[in-house]
Amino acid sequence: MRNLRQWYTEEFKDALLQNPPVWFKSFLFCELVFQLPFFPIATYAFFKGGCRWIRTPAIIYSVQTMTTLIPILSTVLLEDFSNASCFKGQGPKTFHERLFLISVYMPYFLIPLILLLFMLQNPYYKSEEKRKKK
Amino acid sequence: MRNLRQWYTEEFKDALLQNPPVWFKSFLFCELVFQLPFFPIATYAFFKGGCRWIRTPAIIYSVQTMTTLIPILSTVLLEDFSNASCFKGQGPKTFHERLFLISVYMPYFLIPLILLLFMLQNPYYKSEEKRKKK
Repeated sequence: MRNLRQWYTEEFKDALLQNPPVWFKSFLFCELVFQLPFFPIATYAFFKGGCRWIRTPAIIYSVQTMTTLIPILSTVLLEDFSNASCFKGQGPKTFHERLFLISVYMPYFLIPLILLLFMLQNPYYKSEEKRKKK
Repeated sequence: MRNLRQWYTEEFKDALLQNPPVWFKSFLFCELVFQLPFFPIATYAFFKGGCRWIRTPAIIYSVQTMTTLIPILSTVLLEDFSNASCFKGQGPKTFHERLFLISVYMPYFLIPLILLLFMLQNPYYKSEEKRKKK
């Protein structure tokens, strides 16, 4: 596992995983505590079907995950990874390397976004909401 | 305004506002784009009353705001603010100074938490949800 991580961080120039800052570690903590428990619950709800109660947990999960990706993607795209910076020359240098690393993290933003839009737009899940408005 | 900010950052040893890292700036961006527009909408909904449709926006707002506070509070509590660190000696040194700064940021976590719990627990807003489960 450590070799895999070393290969990944060097290959993808992922400075965040190489020397995780405190803020990044706090998100790993979030993932363990709030996001992982959601997966079995959601899997159950979607396989069983007809579980409207999954709407609110799914909205909370997707908003929380998407929010954690905002600083991660911003850092990958805009952070100063020069030798003078906190990352001491680790991390992507060229714009191409930054985009490469963004493509690694982007799915963790897009999949919750799709889930959120699905929960907000799907007539089955929002049907009650609609009635509330009337 | 700049004097006020200077006074605050020096008085409260807020290294995040003194030299905002990219990840912290991305949250300031979130606040402007997603959180500020929520306030007039929520004010309208709560003053008008009976607006069940505010439930989902309120949940999204509070989860998003609380999530941004996790790395901020973690950094204030656990980050290395020594001269050798990225913050170059700026920021709270003693545990008391850290707690003092946490007390500044804590309301931005607690108020959304209260709003979230209110929206999840209040029988008026969750009444439809309940019916869904049955």
